[in-house]
Amino acid sequence: MLTNIEEQIKIITKGSDRLVGVDELKIKLERSIREKKPLIIKLGLDPSAPDIHLGHAVVLRKIKQMQDLGHKAVIVIGDFTGKIGDPTGKSKGRVALTDEQVKENAKTYTDQIIKILHPDQTEVRFNSEWLGELKLDDVIKLAATTTVARMLERDDFQNRYKSNVPIGVHEFFYPLMQAYDSVALKADIELGGTDQTFNILMGRNLQKTMGLEQQTALFMPILEGLDGKEKMSKSLGNYIGINEPHQVMFKKIMEIPDELIIKYYELATDEHPDKIKEIKNKLENGENPRDIKYELAKVITSLYHTPLDVEEAMNYYDTAFGRKSIPDNIPELIIDLDQDKLADIIPLLIRDKYIPSGSEFRRLITQGGVQINKESIVLEDLDMVLVCGDILKIGKKKFLKIIK
Amino acid sequence: MLTNIEEQIKIITKGSDRLVGVDELKIKLERSIREKKPLIIKLGLDPSAPDIHLGHAVVLRKIKQMQDLGHKAVIVIGDFTGKIGDPTGKSKGRVALTDEQVKENAKTYTDQIIKILHPDQTEVRFNSEWLGELKLDDVIKLAATTTVARMLERDDFQNRYKSNVPIGVHEFFYPLMQAYDSVALKADIELGGTDQTFNILMGRNLQKTMGLEQQTALFMPILEGLDGKEKMSKSLGNYIGINEPHQVMFKKIMEIPDELIIKYYELATDEHPDKIKEIKNKLENGENPRDIKYELAKVITSLYHTPLDVEEAMNYYDTAFGRKSIPDNIPELIIDLDQDKLADIIPLLIRDKYIPSGSEFRRLITQGGVQINKESIVLEDLDMVLVCGDILKIGKKKFLKIIK
Repeated sequence: MLTNIEEQIKIITKGSDRLVGVDELKIKLERSIREKKPLIIKLGLDPSAPDIHLGHAVVLRKIKQMQDLGHKAVIVIGDFTGKIGDPTGKSKGRVALTDEQVKENAKTYTDQIIKILHPDQTEVRFNSEWLGELKLDDVIKLAATTTVARMLERDDFQNRYKSNVPIGVHEFFYPLMQAYDSVALKADIELGGTDQTFNILMGRNLQKTMGLEQQTALFMPILEGLDGKEKMSKSLGNYIGINEPHQVMFKKIMEIPDELIIKYYELATDEHPDKIKEIKNKLENGENPRDIKYELAKVITSLYHTPLDVEEAMNYYDTAFGRKSIPDNIPELIIDLDQDKLADIIPLLIRDKYIPSGSEFRRLITQGGVQINKESIVLEDLDMVLVCGDILKIGKKKFLKIIK
Repeated sequence: MLTNIEEQIKIITKGSDRLVGVDELKIKLERSIREKKPLIIKLGLDPSAPDIHLGHAVVLRKIKQMQDLGHKAVIVIGDFTGKIGDPTGKSKGRVALTDEQVKENAKTYTDQIIKILHPDQTEVRFNSEWLGELKLDDVIKLAATTTVARMLERDDFQNRYKSNVPIGVHEFFYPLMQAYDSVALKADIELGGTDQTFNILMGRNLQKTMGLEQQTALFMPILEGLDGKEKMSKSLGNYIGINEPHQVMFKKIMEIPDELIIKYYELATDEHPDKIKEIKNKLENGENPRDIKYELAKVITSLYHTPLDVEEAMNYYDTAFGRKSIPDNIPELIIDLDQDKLADIIPLLIRDKYIPSGSEFRRLITQGGVQINKESIVLEDLDMVLVCGDILKIGKKKFLKIIK
């Protein structure tokens, strides 16, 4: 276990949005080091979510980093509400999940989680274990710990109340149940997205009301998807699934906008904050973002695939898309329909200063320095007929597009 | 069992404020007659109320009248909330009642109830029997049957919400629990004061949501106390307790304002609606309200005391306060200080047409038809000196007050 508290907090807060209860966290860490007892990190998960993507993984990665510091993760599968079904409305068709279905969903889920977390420092619990035992009198005591006004402060409730969209009284219970999970587990830290602020802070309050030590609340920001704008989500198609083939994962990471490189480093890798700072400096000092993103793609793909797979993904990417692929706005070269072999256009290339001479061009070809549509050519290819749209690459940086 | 449905409804609705579900009630009564099966009349009671007074008794008398029609009463003692205590606030001192205390309170209560209801048609149930068994998933299904907005429609919640007085989330459960009592008992009719409108109608809704026949809701008006203005209550001292001694009860009833005579007949006696109509007619045709109230006092006292006790109460009242006491606004007779014997004022009485002649006056005295301060006089009293404020009663209706 890492005994430097400041260093632990540096790692814990890396990339985070907000930490509530930092003083308490220091006390907890101090005791944890003194008594050699790991902190309990809680994460609540809805068993309905199917495939985990890098957006979901933000909190999981953070937990993994805390496991590296010696702490213990408790994943709470919210099977209780799944089993009772959503009783809202009249749709009798919406049948509650059976025990088997819930367990099956949870298995699919934990199989993915284990790709990120350390299995021996991870406990998976189902909240029906304690929620299923609560009786009406416990529920009333639980409900008495908060007020209607406080509940209606929650953004979504407030909006619905103001615009007359019905809120079922039972909906007030979901935050309370999540809060009770923290009580049942005596959680030291709870993680969640910023959209979980209300519920996680309610856990803090409930622990206090019940005479327990309050959990520290760690909120992680939302990770934008490939489009760089919207929250990563399967339905928008802007996601990178952690179970995607290595080649797909690598290529997708190469597609994120440059502005997100550092955020992805912070939220989707386990790199040390100091390392990320260095990378940020490189970027600011004009290093090619594409090269840094290539590194990022390697780092992230390595988290979910074997070194051999990563190697394969890099090769595939280099071959299929060119490690340094084709820039936008390539100048066009208009050629005659009856002078359309590669050899025919050498004078035009000299004219437009792409090459100094025909012999130099031939030398470059023999060295593999000329590509047509990303494939290096040989001297025999001088006889090939160019078609409209062919991309010619000469040397390291000169591109041109054939138009005829 | 009375087989005339219209007649049953006439008796059921006598004095009531509002009946919700009259068509359903007809169907229930029809089936009840056909199948010779009594309806289940539910009344919920808070075990904290100590001495029952005529105000509480309004609903109990109504139930007794329905028992006379053949139906069955189920009294629900709300011991569940009593046992869990009110969890609001921090007052750790407010200890929940023990099972023994709840049972003891309930016994005191039922002992009084049995003075009104037919024991063999009355069942007393404790709602912890079914509420104590509810688990969180049942509670959530229960809560899902209503909305936050609907709860906040309730007057007291609305006022508190608007004026920022905290409402505990658990408080939303009290109406739901009362409603669930109706589900558990499959109640056909629930009675309550108009202040129970929200809770009793919630019982109707919950039964419907749970696929049961809806209970009819019968609301009884509030009974004003001796002051004729405020709701009868122990704390205001304007109450008539059903356990009060017969003399006290009789006298208190004689103290109610004349305007309340009919309301008391409707709400505090079991008299048939037709009989009450007759009494109303008598009042409207100028019969002395005091005589009618005397009848009312006899009727009500008879409900809670033996015929011998009632007789005793009447004799005591007649002796102590005069059966027919002194009206307000008695005309005054001003007499001379030196002509202040009764015999002296005979000319004045003739002058003011109280008596036709002195001999007639003497005849009346010998017949006991003349009273001074409610005591009949004899001829020898003609020599007595009158003092200022003496009330003279001549014959049945003529009063005058001596001023000198």
